[in-house]
Amino acid sequence: MKQSLIFTNDVIEAVERLERNVNPNLTVWIADVNTASLVSPAPSHLITIPDGDDNKTLETVTRVWDEMERMGATRHSLIINLGGGMVTDLGGFAAATFKRGVRFINVPTTLLGAVDAAVGGKTGFNYHGLKNEVGAFAPASDVIISTRFFDTLPLDEMKSGFAEVLKHAMLSDRGEFLSLLGHDFNAPIDHENLLERLRHSVQVKVDIVARDPNEQGERKALNLGHTVGHAFESLAMKRGKPVPHGYAVAWGLVTEAVLSHLILKSPGDDVHRLGNFVRDNYRDFPFTCDDYDELLELMRHDKKSRDGEITCTLLATIGEYRTGMTVSRDDVTAALDILRDQLGV
Amino acid sequence: MKQSLIFTNDVIEAVERLERNVNPNLTVWIADVNTASLVSPAPSHLITIPDGDDNKTLETVTRVWDEMERMGATRHSLIINLGGGMVTDLGGFAAATFKRGVRFINVPTTLLGAVDAAVGGKTGFNYHGLKNEVGAFAPASDVIISTRFFDTLPLDEMKSGFAEVLKHAMLSDRGEFLSLLGHDFNAPIDHENLLERLRHSVQVKVDIVARDPNEQGERKALNLGHTVGHAFESLAMKRGKPVPHGYAVAWGLVTEAVLSHLILKSPGDDVHRLGNFVRDNYRDFPFTCDDYDELLELMRHDKKSRDGEITCTLLATIGEYRTGMTVSRDDVTAALDILRDQLGV
Repeated sequence: MKQSLIFTNDVIEAVERLERNVNPNLTVWIADVNTASLVSPAPSHLITIPDGDDNKTLETVTRVWDEMERMGATRHSLIINLGGGMVTDLGGFAAATFKRGVRFINVPTTLLGAVDAAVGGKTGFNYHGLKNEVGAFAPASDVIISTRFFDTLPLDEMKSGFAEVLKHAMLSDRGEFLSLLGHDFNAPIDHENLLERLRHSVQVKVDIVARDPNEQGERKALNLGHTVGHAFESLAMKRGKPVPHGYAVAWGLVTEAVLSHLILKSPGDDVHRLGNFVRDNYRDFPFTCDDYDELLELMRHDKKSRDGEITCTLLATIGEYRTGMTVSRDDVTAALDILRDQLGV
Repeated sequence: MKQSLIFTNDVIEAVERLERNVNPNLTVWIADVNTASLVSPAPSHLITIPDGDDNKTLETVTRVWDEMERMGATRHSLIINLGGGMVTDLGGFAAATFKRGVRFINVPTTLLGAVDAAVGGKTGFNYHGLKNEVGAFAPASDVIISTRFFDTLPLDEMKSGFAEVLKHAMLSDRGEFLSLLGHDFNAPIDHENLLERLRHSVQVKVDIVARDPNEQGERKALNLGHTVGHAFESLAMKRGKPVPHGYAVAWGLVTEAVLSHLILKSPGDDVHRLGNFVRDNYRDFPFTCDDYDELLELMRHDKKSRDGEITCTLLATIGEYRTGMTVSRDDVTAALDILRDQLGV
């Protein structure tokens, strides 16, 4: 999988340079109702889709195909996805399948998009209410990563993305991990420093994906925090009280860090440091021990689990991961108890 | 692109061996109303779709996704597409996009499917009446190629597939080409010999695709006969008198062989030999010089053309191709005249 990454805070210049190199017969932008206005002057060919995960549907995909057709897009065109993970996932899928594949680039406008969705080639949409049930592994040819859109990003979304930044540090580098725990969400964004943090973070994902583009093995490392995190997210959704993805991941990271300590004897100090950071920044945690059975059931049905067992990525220590670890119900129950204790709920 | 090819006339044994190796949690067969009965006993998980190009639609794709979901297919399942090009194209796309990709194997039941659609990774469906407008490059992990289904194949379909066999020989090997021109469609099928011919023919495609899986360049060689052939096919469709794909390709092969002679001075003898074979086996040719303008317009809008020019693959001689050759309206007009003369219409 070839995917070039451009870290810059001059997005327009980077787009224009890419356009000159690719020399497409037509450039089509895809944005959602919030991000469409981020580019000015407005691009002459712009497909605006509704925002939000509820609209990440086949219906929206067909609207994008229809518009591409109407605009006369061909295999020699260039698609630019401008937005968060919903836009890059759905726009990427639409581009990757239109005439069996039109070149596309991603310009993530959220921190979560920049460190996760926009990079690594996963595209798709929700189907019958199942997240990313239909999709393709199709990398954007280029990803332009910038912090310039983050000044206006709601704090919840910054925090949500930051959970994935934390995850990448936990998979790779204890120094980076400890330094991230000093982050102050209330201070104004230091763009230069944040762009450097992104460079580090995205590279972790890129290196892992390069060794396993289609998620046959090692890519499961990126699932750290997500087996448990997805269960939190799904439960909150079922309750009609959805939580930001990154919050669920943050709680999942703590839970799986506890599991790592219980099972692989990873150092407890780092688990505590992480727990404190998550307690201080990822607010209340709306679950009790009455929810354990349902959470365990959700983990057993995770897309990446097999034969009804719960499997996680665990850490021998910060920076050293083990994929495909089977964990027992008792282990998870104990870890959830410790999580609630750690978060003081 | 990894794709293993199995040439055998014991299909069931080959499928069972693959299943043992892959060890899927579920095997799902996809067939159309005609091919569903070819496997007995009936597989326990079978998705039967309507047949014919008219049903190669998004609606059929969603029905396949729905059934896969209902049957509990996961990333660890195996999909077996049993049928002609419609089934392997559409079933391949459905499998390649369900949960971002379930492993699938193709078992083509037509000659055209065996030498063309089932091999090389092109999947997709028609959209807004445009052929294969949406799709993906997604190779079947394995293709089981057999002649056992051909005894009951209508003669038209045998001839249709044979045009692609001829094309592969024209791209690679004059000896094979001349030997194919001796083929007698009225004789009973010599399965052993035909399987050998398929082995040769499919390898030509595989070698070209391996050098260019996503159709960036050399793969255009496989378009030999198709720039003109597609125009015939589309015109016949618009007239409400569709012709088999392979017939249009056969006429396209002769036309482009004539163009090769006119432009690249390829030997005229072989063009005559080909023309005679096509005249004798691919019946009447329902076009006159009044259709030239419309045919030229269709060629200019071919998916593979660019900037409104007509581009073809041409032959310097049998076995030596040149891709992306631009041909003028006058050249094509002259070639169509010679074609009609050659076919005696």
